[in-house]
Amino acid sequence: MIRTEEIEIDMQADGDTADITSEVQRIIENSKISNGIAVIFMLGSTGAVSTMEYEPGLKRDIKAAFERIAPSDIHYEHHKTWHDDNGRSHIRATFIGPSVVVPFINKKLTLGTWQQIIAINLDTRPRRRRIVVQIIGE
Amino acid sequence: MIRTEEIEIDMQADGDTADITSEVQRIIENSKISNGIAVIFMLGSTGAVSTMEYEPGLKRDIKAAFERIAPSDIHYEHHKTWHDDNGRSHIRATFIGPSVVVPFINKKLTLGTWQQIIAINLDTRPRRRRIVVQIIGE
Amino acid sequence: MIRTEEIEIDMQADGDTADITSEVQRIIENSKISNGIAVIFMLGSTGAVSTMEYEPGLKRDIKAAFERIAPSDIHYEHHKTWHDDNGRSHIRATFIGPSVVVPFINKKLTLGTWQQIIAINLDTRPRRRRIVVQIIGE
Repeated sequence: MIRTEEIEIDMQADGDTADITSEVQRIIENSKISNGIAVIFMLGSTGAVSTMEYEPGLKRDIKAAFERIAPSDIHYEHHKTWHDDNGRSHIRATFIGPSVVVPFINKKLTLGTWQQIIAINLDTRPRRRRIVVQIIGE
Repeated sequence: MIRTEEIEIDMQADGDTADITSEVQRIIENSKISNGIAVIFMLGSTGAVSTMEYEPGLKRDIKAAFERIAPSDIHYEHHKTWHDDNGRSHIRATFIGPSVVVPFINKKLTLGTWQQIIAINLDTRPRRRRIVVQIIGE
Repeated sequence: MIRTEEIEIDMQADGDTADITSEVQRIIENSKISNGIAVIFMLGSTGAVSTMEYEPGLKRDIKAAFERIAPSDIHYEHHKTWHDDNGRSHIRATFIGPSVVVPFINKKLTLGTWQQIIAINLDTRPRRRRIVVQIIGE
């Protein structure tokens, strides 16, 4: 059995994170599927998904970490292609990746106590991000 | 229902990227599955998969970014184990990861407009890379 | 068909890696599923999973690489929130990600010859890590 839904969320620029755990959990509860996987997939090449302890300190720390792996003050060839300014956004998004898969048992996600599913907007401007959530199981 | 196929692709060294979206889409179209997930899995420990806007500028930018997270001019213990030269390749591949999962609905991948599925060869020499594509759904 | 099991493993601190391939393979063999995917999911926000050639040199190289993307000697806001010391652990875990998905055919994981499934403990102290393994297929 398969159920597909979409989450939409307004996000700030340059590494803003949002906790989408309760939305994913609600999609599982509204389905007829008890055991299986939730596939969380970020639409677009300047966003990503992962898990994190969702607290204000780490929300700031992760933005600083993104600056180290793809700094904002260096040259990107991408800017020449499109006269765009978000080369760093694309690199950061590809590194984190667009998908995360979380099992659930008896309709409950198998997350750690301080582990939340997060969406990340890496674009250089605020974006309404769309995340596909697909539930597969029995 | 499950269908498994394999893509083979000749790639250049040290962070070469290839757009495999149309191959994955074709495997879905040739299957009897309408809704589900495409699991894309890179065989081997010096390759990886993710998504990216596939354009020449970013193809160069991502190679520069790999140099920052695992530089080519530092020492790797891996070289002592096998008298090999691709320590950086392994580290970069483990960081990106070997798998990405993309949902599809009515036989169409739920990708963003400028978001392609990419294979990445991180080895220090050109390689024919093999990517397993498994379609699961109904 | 779905089967869910859990692996528990004692791990050292700060980037210790463990090869869990044989445990995942055993779960597949003990199931009635011949073809499908193994979803490997790390419980907790200071651990991660990926694949790697599991050899002593790379085990050391990856710890050095983690120091570059989230150094241990810089300030983390996370420490102010909880008077904790593992800000770097969280950042490294979010970057690698909690899930990897590996297809299997005729009960055999489709891994490369030198490619193992690894668990990574990124916390600043030794931990007993729990990894959910869910097998989905037919």
